Amino acid sequence: MKSKFFLFLVVVGAFCGQMPLVFSQAGYTWKDGREFKIFGQLDDTNISYYKRLPDTLERHLRAPLWKLSEQASGLYIKFKTNTSSVSISYQVENPIAFPHMPSTGVSGVDLYAKSGDTWQWVRGKFSFKDTISYHFKGISSDEERMYRLYLPLYNQIKWLKVGVDSNAVFQAIVKKSSTNPIIIYGTSIAQGACASRAGMAWTNILERTIDLPIINLGFSGNGRLEDPVINYIKRFDASMFIFDCMPNFTSGQGLNPKQARIRLKKAVLEIRSKHVETPILLVEHAGYSDAILQTGRKTIYENLNREVVATFKELQSQGIKNLYLLSREEIGLGGNSFVDGTHPNDLGMYEYASAYGKKIKNILD
Amino acid sequence: MKSKFFLFLVVVGAFCGQMPLVFSQAGYTWKDGREFKIFGQLDDTNISYYKRLPDTLERHLRAPLWKLSEQASGLYIKFKTNTSSVSISYQVENPIAFPHMPSTGVSGVDLYAKSGDTWQWVRGKFSFKDTISYHFKGISSDEERMYRLYLPLYNQIKWLKVGVDSNAVFQAIVKKSSTNPIIIYGTSIAQGACASRAGMAWTNILERTIDLPIINLGFSGNGRLEDPVINYIKRFDASMFIFDCMPNFTSGQGLNPKQARIRLKKAVLEIRSKHVETPILLVEHAGYSDAILQTGRKTIYENLNREVVATFKELQSQGIKNLYLLSREEIGLGGNSFVDGTHPNDLGMYEYASAYGKKIKNILD
Repeated sequence: MKSKFFLFLVVVGAFCGQMPLVFSQAGYTWKDGREFKIFGQLDDTNISYYKRLPDTLERHLRAPLWKLSEQASGLYIKFKTNTSSVSISYQVENPIAFPHMPSTGVSGVDLYAKSGDTWQWVRGKFSFKDTISYHFKGISSDEERMYRLYLPLYNQIKWLKVGVDSNAVFQAIVKKSSTNPIIIYGTSIAQGACASRAGMAWTNILERTIDLPIINLGFSGNGRLEDPVINYIKRFDASMFIFDCMPNFTSGQGLNPKQARIRLKKAVLEIRSKHVETPILLVEHAGYSDAILQTGRKTIYENLNREVVATFKELQSQGIKNLYLLSREEIGLGGNSFVDGTHPNDLGMYEYASAYGKKIKNILD
Repeated sequence: MKSKFFLFLVVVGAFCGQMPLVFSQAGYTWKDGREFKIFGQLDDTNISYYKRLPDTLERHLRAPLWKLSEQASGLYIKFKTNTSSVSISYQVENPIAFPHMPSTGVSGVDLYAKSGDTWQWVRGKFSFKDTISYHFKGISSDEERMYRLYLPLYNQIKWLKVGVDSNAVFQAIVKKSSTNPIIIYGTSIAQGACASRAGMAWTNILERTIDLPIINLGFSGNGRLEDPVINYIKRFDASMFIFDCMPNFTSGQGLNPKQARIRLKKAVLEIRSKHVETPILLVEHAGYSDAILQTGRKTIYENLNREVVATFKELQSQGIKNLYLLSREEIGLGGNSFVDGTHPNDLGMYEYASAYGKKIKNILD
């Protein structure tokens, strides 16, 4: 047995240097997460740290929706530093992984640094214990850089702290953006299932490639175009409103295509009642990769997309301007794009972000 | 607390119908895995079920390498059926997930069916308990189809059984391929880290797009171009030999670029001593996504690739024909292609498979 255990250690250790590290916290200057501004939140002082909807809205929402809104998808903090290493410690509320989405995606953070015009991913080692730790080192520290730390896609943060070299400049960015955000109301796919890490959620990929802030209101299984959410988001000025909720209008959620049409139309008219010219983008169901063999599933998304197109045409015929449609064909997911037939893997996430990027550019340019 | 637990259940349940299922085994005809031929193995009766190297080789190999060769990456079984549902049960030896690779990738199976000229992924629900179960249903059963069940990328199978509808045709395919395989000797990346599911390992994507069997000899951290492996694989006729071992010639493995060059040259000459014309493909290190900021990492792969190119040129100048090179640039991984800077995510896996497919087609056409 001894030799078997040794072998196990060796084999695990051989996994290319990806061993979790227990690292010292000496030599760092630390800031608590609350010293930073949380980006990816709407401009509302009633939204607590690491959450996506205001506490004042809780009593108007179904409990699962509120619970999901406490998960940090699409949120990030920003800081400026010339450090050679960054250390992150935090705790989360919920299970750290799913069977089809790893800890790094469900509960992990993801660090990017601005280098020239692009956001460069920073490599770190991680340890998923009771306290989760990431340690990024060997960073070229010849200049001060802007950093962006994406928070977990499917977990709620209890507390978080960020450390940099004790002799480094360390400036928490607290100034909010002067640009109106793109507000996305969606499902688990928009929330980030099943990206391998936070930066690979399509909303986060997209935000790194376009020059606009994004608000991620993707709620797993609960992107249902509900009045309290619509009435809330219409309070805010946006560069664009996006409704990508079709995958949640299925029998599993107790919903159907007819309800999708009613709610989609109502959502658009509600937004338009307050925002006369802001572009509104309706998004078709992106399809299922298994639909060719498991044909019952093809019917599901085809029926939904028929209603999306009908709603789009009806609203256009009623004179609603600046209304746009992103089709299943434009999203273009294929057989390799999913992990479970419903949720994109990182290839699918990249395809989603590319399709959105092209469409948004066409609309806003 | 009660209401908190309820909420947790609701939120988890809301994860778009991906709840594990406990399902009945009634109404199925079952076959044990040993009634099938294991595809992806070399043509050697000394290789046990679900393993990748023969028992006779164990005493010549380092223990970690042998242990990894017991993991089922690249192996699959084939059957023909007109069933409407497929059920799989099995047990594995090792931990079911990694922090950066989900259970579906490390320990999951993946089912594809031939439909026309293409392999279509089949959607299943899964349960990762002591016995792992997959259940695929709602399959259009209007015709007999050929199925391929990929085995886990990073786990060793204890036993496995396959069930189909009790009234369905169910033929285990045991006839071996008449075509010589492509033999790939590689690292964790070739073994499949960090695909989200078995079918997304680049070797498996590739095999679905080219018409040649592939032998996956990727060994996590242990793709070191060692004599016992080279001497073993040269016994077999192949359509191509591929050496994609550079990511394991680093200090973490106690190796360096000089050793890479010596072993790469020796490996090619060994193969050539037995196979006068078979194409041999040398593959550069695909790079690290973090190399722009963490510049120490850039040096690692640049130094290794310099030796690959030098070896390639040296061998060509010595008259070695049918020798080819797949470069880092041709593989073309970018900042979105990795999960941890070293291992590709599904986007990277797709890019790897595409680059290989193009190169192999050019060589063999």
